[in-house]
Amino acid sequence: MKILHTSDWHIGRQFHNVSLIEDQRHVLNQIIQIAEQEKVDVVLIAGDIYDRSVPPSQAVALLDEVLDQLHQRHITVILISGNHDGAERLRFGASQMGQVGVHILADLEQLTQPVILHDQFGDVAFYGIPYADPVTVKQAFATEVSSHDEAMACLVNKIEKSLSTKRNILLSHCFIDGGQASESERPLSIGGAECVSYQHFLPFDYVALGHLHGRQYKGDEKIRYSGSILKYSFSEEKQIKSVVLVELGEQDVEHLQQIPLTPLRDMRSITGSLQSLLQQGLTDPNKDDYLLVQLTDSHAILDIMGKLREVYPNVLHLERPGLISHQPSGHAGKEQLKKGEQQMFSDFFEQVTGETMDDAQTEYLNKVLQQIHRGES
Amino acid sequence: MKILHTSDWHIGRQFHNVSLIEDQRHVLNQIIQIAEQEKVDVVLIAGDIYDRSVPPSQAVALLDEVLDQLHQRHITVILISGNHDGAERLRFGASQMGQVGVHILADLEQLTQPVILHDQFGDVAFYGIPYADPVTVKQAFATEVSSHDEAMACLVNKIEKSLSTKRNILLSHCFIDGGQASESERPLSIGGAECVSYQHFLPFDYVALGHLHGRQYKGDEKIRYSGSILKYSFSEEKQIKSVVLVELGEQDVEHLQQIPLTPLRDMRSITGSLQSLLQQGLTDPNKDDYLLVQLTDSHAILDIMGKLREVYPNVLHLERPGLISHQPSGHAGKEQLKKGEQQMFSDFFEQVTGETMDDAQTEYLNKVLQQIHRGES
Repeated sequence: MKILHTSDWHIGRQFHNVSLIEDQRHVLNQIIQIAEQEKVDVVLIAGDIYDRSVPPSQAVALLDEVLDQLHQRHITVILISGNHDGAERLRFGASQMGQVGVHILADLEQLTQPVILHDQFGDVAFYGIPYADPVTVKQAFATEVSSHDEAMACLVNKIEKSLSTKRNILLSHCFIDGGQASESERPLSIGGAECVSYQHFLPFDYVALGHLHGRQYKGDEKIRYSGSILKYSFSEEKQIKSVVLVELGEQDVEHLQQIPLTPLRDMRSITGSLQSLLQQGLTDPNKDDYLLVQLTDSHAILDIMGKLREVYPNVLHLERPGLISHQPSGHAGKEQLKKGEQQMFSDFFEQVTGETMDDAQTEYLNKVLQQIHRGES
Repeated sequence: MKILHTSDWHIGRQFHNVSLIEDQRHVLNQIIQIAEQEKVDVVLIAGDIYDRSVPPSQAVALLDEVLDQLHQRHITVILISGNHDGAERLRFGASQMGQVGVHILADLEQLTQPVILHDQFGDVAFYGIPYADPVTVKQAFATEVSSHDEAMACLVNKIEKSLSTKRNILLSHCFIDGGQASESERPLSIGGAECVSYQHFLPFDYVALGHLHGRQYKGDEKIRYSGSILKYSFSEEKQIKSVVLVELGEQDVEHLQQIPLTPLRDMRSITGSLQSLLQQGLTDPNKDDYLLVQLTDSHAILDIMGKLREVYPNVLHLERPGLISHQPSGHAGKEQLKKGEQQMFSDFFEQVTGETMDDAQTEYLNKVLQQIHRGES
């Protein structure tokens, strides 16, 4: 059986006020193509399908389209809700859709009802744990759990008791202890322990995880995060985004492969002086990428964003390490206060125009300052 | 073939800040029971399933539950989106759900793709026109329409051209010219002509209409509004809410029957003095009804709502015709301005307490007024 594991689609997400829906459509189409080319039997999506519980309608339409495309290719889909999804909304129609192979597992009460698929070796059971915080688990099962780890132990325990087939796959959306976070995940608990031990997951033949946006595995190769489909923060600049192709044999996983996704626009940072960046932008084949620009210039420049966007239209964030290194933090302000008005103005003039004041300008400034002091203004 | 026609569920609606979800669940369960008992083949819902385009999650859950209950009883469901629904959200999963008999027709592009059902006499085609304003129709079909009537003519014309079976049923959400509106429908156009002629619908064997909340037919018995499932305004106090059971024979409709729905709480108005209403409330078997109270008392009374709600917990609106008839509108204010401060205060005192001021009170008031005038306050 061939399984394609993906997660953290975050459909409808915005990044620096830019909608990523076309970028998402682009990689989701790739996933459909991969699923088709690799003749996979089932696509697993381990939560955070949408970016928020009430997604914009175009996000709803895109998910509908993707599920439909997979369904038309006779590929089963199994998905769980993540901490970003609104489970109650996401599972609308789940019962009917499940009958034709689109399984939305977003109800804790159906935790122990797996989706059963078949191959030449027999049945494979797919269990999904929709994301749930400890309070929800406590209420749902009238049990005493106070941490994410205890909640996960409780949930996995219930599933374990109901296991009846030889091969079992789990989908879960959680933060495994020791996992590498990026900057784009929303914390699962504020000030509390959000981590769970990978050891809960050892009884399963493969665990398709979601939540962490960087691809990785913890404890065992088969306990794995596919990672998000796109870079959702500049901290992910060096990450390779991919999906996991899992080949399940008679006993267990026989082969694992990470298939990279190519974004419509990459997300990366570039460093240099304004002039050099403007120059390199003219011939940059990827000038539509989403950019974090770190400018090395140490002088003030007017409308940097406007200038940069003439060659790099998708500059999203600007940093000026050049300016900062020029003025040791905390001291600049105090130093300036000691200076006289004339000196402060001439510094300001220099920062804004990039030039020093000439004699005529200095003379005029002095005249104005004198007038102000005399109260003749 | 037996068809059950309903519309204007408005799931998630609030009335005077009270959620009606339990009232809706109550009548929707009746619809499920009626469908089961009458062994209907298909339930038609002619739009305004939800009350707004982004319904609360418990509304989504309730619709999901109702569709599931009908589906479990092997009853086909065909629904269209109304002017309150967000078509793009509503049709999530439509393609998969349609395969198992839950047909969400909320895409103008699929206007000419009917749902085909069968009985002993052959095929019956069900066409749905999701609600669309003239601008949307104009854009979707690159056609020149400027009114609701022209838009409907255009849409029905497209369907007519594609008719290929002998018996054809239409679902539409619109305001037919001459129809009786209630106070709870949202106008389809502001200041424009929102009405369409019933004559567009004559080619069909039955037209299941939605939008108007009072049950009625226009032009022909088979061009019919089922009406909403609940009273959604006090203007509907005298209306009977029902669903329509349609029996389709070999040629056309053989029998029509309106089956009433019994609300969990009725919506009605009661009139009388506070004392008489409080008295009658003690033995009123329907004291949980949603009430508009018209109080005949002509004097001021403190905390009327609090007092009424002790016996009628769901008083939602209070009118005081007694007070109004006492003070001819427009004159009271001017008359009062002519009075002295003392007289005005004693009137006010009387209104609030229901008693006239005694001598000691009058004396004290005069003292206070004198102090104020002397600026000694």
